[in-house]
Amino acid sequence: MSEIKLKKNVHSRNQEFADQNRQQFQRAGLFTVNILGSPGAGKTSLVEQTVQQLSPLPRILVIEGDVETEYDADRIRKLGVEAIQIQTHGACHLDAIMIREYIGEKNLSDFQLLFIENVGNLICPAGFDLGEDTRVVVGSTTEGDDKPIKYPEMYYTANACVINKIDLIPHINFNLEDFKTRARQANEDLLFLPLSCTSGEGMAQWLDWLKQGMAGCQG
Amino acid sequence: MSEIKLKKNVHSRNQEFADQNRQQFQRAGLFTVNILGSPGAGKTSLVEQTVQQLSPLPRILVIEGDVETEYDADRIRKLGVEAIQIQTHGACHLDAIMIREYIGEKNLSDFQLLFIENVGNLICPAGFDLGEDTRVVVGSTTEGDDKPIKYPEMYYTANACVINKIDLIPHINFNLEDFKTRARQANEDLLFLPLSCTSGEGMAQWLDWLKQGMAGCQG
Repeated sequence: MSEIKLKKNVHSRNQEFADQNRQQFQRAGLFTVNILGSPGAGKTSLVEQTVQQLSPLPRILVIEGDVETEYDADRIRKLGVEAIQIQTHGACHLDAIMIREYIGEKNLSDFQLLFIENVGNLICPAGFDLGEDTRVVVGSTTEGDDKPIKYPEMYYTANACVINKIDLIPHINFNLEDFKTRARQANEDLLFLPLSCTSGEGMAQWLDWLKQGMAGCQG
Repeated sequence: MSEIKLKKNVHSRNQEFADQNRQQFQRAGLFTVNILGSPGAGKTSLVEQTVQQLSPLPRILVIEGDVETEYDADRIRKLGVEAIQIQTHGACHLDAIMIREYIGEKNLSDFQLLFIENVGNLICPAGFDLGEDTRVVVGSTTEGDDKPIKYPEMYYTANACVINKIDLIPHINFNLEDFKTRARQANEDLLFLPLSCTSGEGMAQWLDWLKQGMAGCQG
């Protein structure tokens, strides 16, 4: 079997499971957010701050994807929120089959919001639908303002882009408008949510956006 | 053919080409450095600063790996140094076959130092020997001090670790000793080179290390 054919098979099998996941999420009235980005962009910090600031606090379930360790799930559990850790042991992305395995027997009606934090990687996870309602790429100012055009599939497949670490802009070489212009070259419909998980600036806009998403799922 | 068997075939074919590359590099007396790290860790900045500060300046060839764009090769060419851009168009790592294709007909005896800047990704490139003499992972303080243990294969397979952006430590939550302790859990022989491409602090140690490597290749 050729590598290209195998890749197609992997993707079509993933899509079957993603469709099943999506149906299950929708039946449960759950708003599901796939959070993607480079290592250290601030994905876990964003989930932590959301859990601490979202009011009224919905019932939240978090799935943490990492190559190794339970670190991130432990960070979330410390806040009193249920978290599932998926350790991929070398694999560079989550796929819909992994998600199915972990949520298959869960009663998702107990929750209103599901965060799936993907493995830190700006390339491979873009190609795998997990069944989510929406996809958020977390970019960070310290990565530089050229990343959207160098990793276009990630920005092309995202619905919203959190631009994290805006508190560090005075200390680094980063142009917010250049970043947006380049991201729009990949995806002209992308919504930008600049914020800082450290200073709290911009968090209100992110929280409002989440609330709108949750409201839309509770038919 | 199963996916695991295909993966084995891909890796053994890569190794054949890596061995050929290594022989060619050694015949030419070339010191070859594979530079790896997350998007935005500062890999290109490190090459730029090296080109500007290494004295006496050796004859340098740079291979830039990116998913898309010629941006990074253009940055290096502006400094008067020859740069080859490999655009992988979606692929998440360089492999030895790509390197072979680009350097196969080059007279490498014209050069003393070859930098190969890999695709920005802390996972996949770790599994692909390119034929290099040494492997440098560029971590950055802004990624956080937990990354070595979350992406252990990258740190396990590296010979040296540049810890970039140390000028930003006063503004962020990063503990240098915790970072080193975690990296040593993956690789107890790892050499640490903390520096800042912006302030220049620590660059001298990196440049000395490069000079030692070059001296060792000129039998």
